Amino acid sequence: MKSYRKELWFEAPTRRAFIRITQQVETCLHESGIREGLVLVNAMHITASVFINDDERGLLQDYEKWLENLAPHEPVSGYQHNRTGEDNADAHLKRQVMGREVVVAITAGKLDFGPWEQIFYGEFDGRRKKRVLVKIIGE
Amino acid sequence: MKSYRKELWFEAPTRRAFIRITQQVETCLHESGIREGLVLVNAMHITASVFINDDERGLLQDYEKWLENLAPHEPVSGYQHNRTGEDNADAHLKRQVMGREVVVAITAGKLDFGPWEQIFYGEFDGRRKKRVLVKIIGE
Amino acid sequence: MKSYRKELWFEAPTRRAFIRITQQVETCLHESGIREGLVLVNAMHITASVFINDDERGLLQDYEKWLENLAPHEPVSGYQHNRTGEDNADAHLKRQVMGREVVVAITAGKLDFGPWEQIFYGEFDGRRKKRVLVKIIGE
Repeated sequence: MKSYRKELWFEAPTRRAFIRITQQVETCLHESGIREGLVLVNAMHITASVFINDDERGLLQDYEKWLENLAPHEPVSGYQHNRTGEDNADAHLKRQVMGREVVVAITAGKLDFGPWEQIFYGEFDGRRKKRVLVKIIGE
Repeated sequence: MKSYRKELWFEAPTRRAFIRITQQVETCLHESGIREGLVLVNAMHITASVFINDDERGLLQDYEKWLENLAPHEPVSGYQHNRTGEDNADAHLKRQVMGREVVVAITAGKLDFGPWEQIFYGEFDGRRKKRVLVKIIGE
Repeated sequence: MKSYRKELWFEAPTRRAFIRITQQVETCLHESGIREGLVLVNAMHITASVFINDDERGLLQDYEKWLENLAPHEPVSGYQHNRTGEDNADAHLKRQVMGREVVVAITAGKLDFGPWEQIFYGEFDGRRKKRVLVKIIGE
């Protein structure tokens, strides 16, 4: 069994952002030399997500609006967590809806994807450096 | 390390459906000959889910009603994504709540499940052929 | 490839609870002797979650309030599932928001975590014994 590890770094200029990272994960896979296995891609921070969906601008706007409706940022004082001095409780909630991680099959040296699958980093409390972990195991 | 891959095909006759697929995954596991490892089961389409929950008709109806409340199909014009000519933005949102994939332990050649765990394919934009990927790694 | 399996048992005294289990998973990892690989941690019951987020008391209260808002326990009669004699339909829904499982990378014999990641067992229908599965594969 072979294994591979890499951290990807991001610094979104806005509080919330969706960044496509499929190609960066493909580069990791190429570097690993692994042909059959699994790749785990996870946010290393608890106010961010890694998820798979469509790279369509309108849809990403729909996600932002929908998440804001499900877990509004304001009023900041509406969350117990924000009494610690944080203002990011909503980001912890949004991340649970979108998920922490994806696991993707590797077949014949490629990400084994359906026609429209793209990996995204979802940032819900940006404007600082944060990381995504790529871990690959296989042969 | 051994690996195994299979695509399962579905064509739900309705826009939304929940289809139990535990036995199909068990058949894959048997074919693989793998006794210890992990199986990844994921929707290959971004308007569908694979999830684990209870095979109880009333609960599946509750899920449908609840998801429709969280991310309504109508009004179709309420989503930016639908300006592309699609009418399935809600399906992309529902899929995030229910999840893209499950990872299940394989122990002694079996799906290592609690008493009520069943694997489901969740369709949110059906009436066409769509796929689920089963990838198994182990020994 | 090596593999390891353990069940962790919980009996929350209340209907809903969040229990940090990071150290129990670390103990499993130590017992396994695995240095590079993946660990799957999943609820074996369908009204419970395993998730990764912040060990901050206020945030856990925010999760409880938010989940109760998204999928209220009352009125119990509002769910088809509860016509079976159960009163836990809401717990099945809450579990989907928070997720069934996490997959965590193992690197150099440790859980490969960001600075604040903690593993939690999320109970939504407690007051009875329930299990979490820890499965580790690697070398």
